[in-house]
Amino acid sequence: MSLVFSAPISIRFAHCDPAGIVFYPRYFELMNGVVEDWCAQGLGMSFHEMHIVQGIGLPTVHIETDFVKTSVLGDELVAELRVIKLGRASATIEIRMVGQEQDLRLKAQLVLVMAHVQERRAIALPVALREQMRKYLTA
Amino acid sequence: MSLVFSAPISIRFAHCDPAGIVFYPRYFELMNGVVEDWCAQGLGMSFHEMHIVQGIGLPTVHIETDFVKTSVLGDELVAELRVIKLGRASATIEIRMVGQEQDLRLKAQLVLVMAHVQERRAIALPVALREQMRKYLTA
Amino acid sequence: MSLVFSAPISIRFAHCDPAGIVFYPRYFELMNGVVEDWCAQGLGMSFHEMHIVQGIGLPTVHIETDFVKTSVLGDELVAELRVIKLGRASATIEIRMVGQEQDLRLKAQLVLVMAHVQERRAIALPVALREQMRKYLTA
Amino acid sequence: MSLVFSAPISIRFAHCDPAGIVFYPRYFELMNGVVEDWCAQGLGMSFHEMHIVQGIGLPTVHIETDFVKTSVLGDELVAELRVIKLGRASATIEIRMVGQEQDLRLKAQLVLVMAHVQERRAIALPVALREQMRKYLTA
Repeated sequence: MSLVFSAPISIRFAHCDPAGIVFYPRYFELMNGVVEDWCAQGLGMSFHEMHIVQGIGLPTVHIETDFVKTSVLGDELVAELRVIKLGRASATIEIRMVGQEQDLRLKAQLVLVMAHVQERRAIALPVALREQMRKYLTA
Repeated sequence: MSLVFSAPISIRFAHCDPAGIVFYPRYFELMNGVVEDWCAQGLGMSFHEMHIVQGIGLPTVHIETDFVKTSVLGDELVAELRVIKLGRASATIEIRMVGQEQDLRLKAQLVLVMAHVQERRAIALPVALREQMRKYLTA
Repeated sequence: MSLVFSAPISIRFAHCDPAGIVFYPRYFELMNGVVEDWCAQGLGMSFHEMHIVQGIGLPTVHIETDFVKTSVLGDELVAELRVIKLGRASATIEIRMVGQEQDLRLKAQLVLVMAHVQERRAIALPVALREQMRKYLTA
Repeated sequence: MSLVFSAPISIRFAHCDPAGIVFYPRYFELMNGVVEDWCAQGLGMSFHEMHIVQGIGLPTVHIETDFVKTSVLGDELVAELRVIKLGRASATIEIRMVGQEQDLRLKAQLVLVMAHVQERRAIALPVALREQMRKYLTA
């Protein structure tokens, strides 16, 4: 059975715009934080370990997002992350954010590519990391 | 002939991450700024006029983006905005950012919906605004 | 005895700049989050309650900050908040962020003023809120 | 006679909070941009040159700010930068932002220190840069 990584998201004052709802670029910061937590807590390799120790990274090369329903200041959401496709150097993931009534706020697909930071080129996913990612691969 | 709205984009320190390249959520802030400038300068209706005076807005309900090539601190880009599709209440636009050598950095498609801010519902695009948008509609 | 409000702060990828350290404007977002959590958890009045329900807010009118030591990606800090001075309409607070070895990263003093959002003018702190704040007043 | 560096600031949607005014941490991003422009345009040494080519930087170690008057979406401000004090390794600058009627929105003092990025230690300001800075030193 495949795992789902989930993380709580509090909608803060800093995320909201003059219309009183989440300013959509802030959702991408929040999603980047979900990927960061997934790597550290779900896959056992923190961004610090990747970027500072190993000199590798996981940049996003493609993203598509449906903003289904607005979120407002004080909303408590849950983000769920699944792996949709696992390549040699890339992983396609899906992130959903839902409200307290399981109402979908947004759905996104991101293609992440493992890269050597200094040389700015794609490299194969480290074997151990890829094995951890596989646990989150949807059937 | 259809118009293209273009705007200069300077890649600043505030946009860049520890890998020395643009942190991708910042691109969405930059794209939102391009839409904001297009409304004010290209369409004759500023976000201030929309949000503060008329109580309407143009939220993004769908966005897909290809990050083709990284940008670094000090890069001077040009953003180009075109209208792909024009509905009764929505506009699908394309934004491209290119470097000094016309090299593509990113390409995005956004679906914007005209909305009544207070009531949180879609409304028809104001006629005058829609006519202005039509000038940017690609053949 | 006076209370100290404390909150954990994880230094994320989104907070760091090309020098690999926290980009200082992000510290102010983090400090605003500490004040937000203090209001909700320490004082029993969330920003949602203030802004959306009651139409009041707690804008910062003065701030001074010493950035004592840099923080890097992955650092786990603790923020501590104390009240230094309590006026009729304002509160002066101190926020410290310290690392795992109790090493000081930054120290800030902020003057917050209770305001009526729509009318943009200072008002007296609500009595119950002021009583809660007094518990955090340093002797 | 001493020079004043000035730069236009447009208050954008991205800067504003649910109260419809500038979210104060955004002012610090804007101020950082003013310093960035001053270095490139006023002093002849861009952040790209500093950070990427020379491996040096100009971190802010102290800042104090008075938020005198709120700014709203669509406001066109002017930022003015002066040097207050010039040390061997540091510069104390003042930034003021004013509205169209010369009304003061904020006043800030920042202490910037010249630093070697990799080694995280203060170094003397490069002579040529210091000479340029001196032109902005108030009498």
